[in-house]
Amino acid sequence: MTSGKVTLLSAGPGDLDLLTIRAAKTLAAADILLVDDLANADIVTLAPKARVIRVGKRGGCKSTPQAFIERLMQRYARKGLHVVRVKGGDALLFGRAGEEIAALRGAGIEVDIVNGVSSGFAAAAGLGISLTHRDHCQGVTFVTAHMRDHSEPDWRALAATGMTLAIYMGMSRIGGIAQSLLDVLPATTPAAVVQHAGSHEEKRLVTTLARLADDAAAAGLGSPAVILVGAAIGEAAAFAAHGGRSFAHAA
Amino acid sequence: MTSGKVTLLSAGPGDLDLLTIRAAKTLAAADILLVDDLANADIVTLAPKARVIRVGKRGGCKSTPQAFIERLMQRYARKGLHVVRVKGGDALLFGRAGEEIAALRGAGIEVDIVNGVSSGFAAAAGLGISLTHRDHCQGVTFVTAHMRDHSEPDWRALAATGMTLAIYMGMSRIGGIAQSLLDVLPATTPAAVVQHAGSHEEKRLVTTLARLADDAAAAGLGSPAVILVGAAIGEAAAFAAHGGRSFAHAA
Repeated sequence: MTSGKVTLLSAGPGDLDLLTIRAAKTLAAADILLVDDLANADIVTLAPKARVIRVGKRGGCKSTPQAFIERLMQRYARKGLHVVRVKGGDALLFGRAGEEIAALRGAGIEVDIVNGVSSGFAAAAGLGISLTHRDHCQGVTFVTAHMRDHSEPDWRALAATGMTLAIYMGMSRIGGIAQSLLDVLPATTPAAVVQHAGSHEEKRLVTTLARLADDAAAAGLGSPAVILVGAAIGEAAAFAAHGGRSFAHAA
Repeated sequence: MTSGKVTLLSAGPGDLDLLTIRAAKTLAAADILLVDDLANADIVTLAPKARVIRVGKRGGCKSTPQAFIERLMQRYARKGLHVVRVKGGDALLFGRAGEEIAALRGAGIEVDIVNGVSSGFAAAAGLGISLTHRDHCQGVTFVTAHMRDHSEPDWRALAATGMTLAIYMGMSRIGGIAQSLLDVLPATTPAAVVQHAGSHEEKRLVTTLARLADDAAAAGLGSPAVILVGAAIGEAAAFAAHGGRSFAHAA
């Protein structure tokens, strides 16, 4: 009997055609599917022979305990089954992949990973901008506002690098984040919010850092969303201001 | 007659099955294909009806001038054709997408974007680690070492954020980068190099920041490669040290 294994599979940001071809092939062969809240629910249609187990887990909400998810994966893999653990975006950016890999390795179970598109990239695509336009910056930082110990990342240090910031899980504290960034960055720094990036429900807002929290509230934007801050984001604002239409100001 | 348009299409890090399903569909319908050096050359097999134009461009080497590429795209789009501009990794991370989008918009040509997997994510998948294990960090910075004016990013400011660093186009100055980072980070900080991430030629090295340049030279690693630095990278080293096999120390 062949031994089982676990694949951590990236579901991408929303629409199913943003999955990789490798992800689609892997899903088609899966025996067991563990699906996250943040993944598109229709992903199960790509795994017709799999038993589907929903293991929702969202910051601050009721959730399936992490230890239970890890035990489930191990149990099925030990039976010789191919377990596919589906995660929204790219499996290796946030989402506790590190802990799951460590637990599986500790149990002697083979793990592999199928990459995907993270929602920060989809947000930039929706806005029609590069994350790293070389007139403006040398890179981009993907950072989560939702930390294990309820502390905050060092927003000033991040702002001081001059990188574009792509902030995940920040909508519940968007006012405080903007305030901290304003200690370092000008009030006119371009900023954007993209909710449901990469899906048909995508909503976009382009504004400035000073107006970010108020404008996001006025537009009714909430989680899940990516907040983008930095001069490179100004390319979207400039385009909208000149009557651009390929990428609407708000979907 | 319908008007043409340009799609900036992400070819992913290497293997063709790391393209998204949307990318494959877009290629199948393309009239004109402009292909980068950094994309897998076999990608043309996915675009059977397209005329293929190679527009290689790699830091420091002989290359097709950017202005010429932009004129080519405009010329074919104005003929009503669907031009697909293929870029390695994700089109919106480095690679001058920002300039191409601005030029096309300035010429009144419709642009859209198809996302993909950037090589930093593929590098982490090869090493079998999360880029953002929450025991170690709150995020990851993707930064290019190859700047327009031949200056350097502020490595100390980047190191001070505590983010995992994914450094692109840094192999030709790996010694200097490591030295600058050592001003802030401990000598034992885990570091890795992944060459040809996400392709069958992938080669991996896991070491420490102090030994990074020497070990990369000894292993014969060169461009194109991603350099990863930070405590989260230690998960790969810890695994290798304990006899791990799912993710080899060097492929």
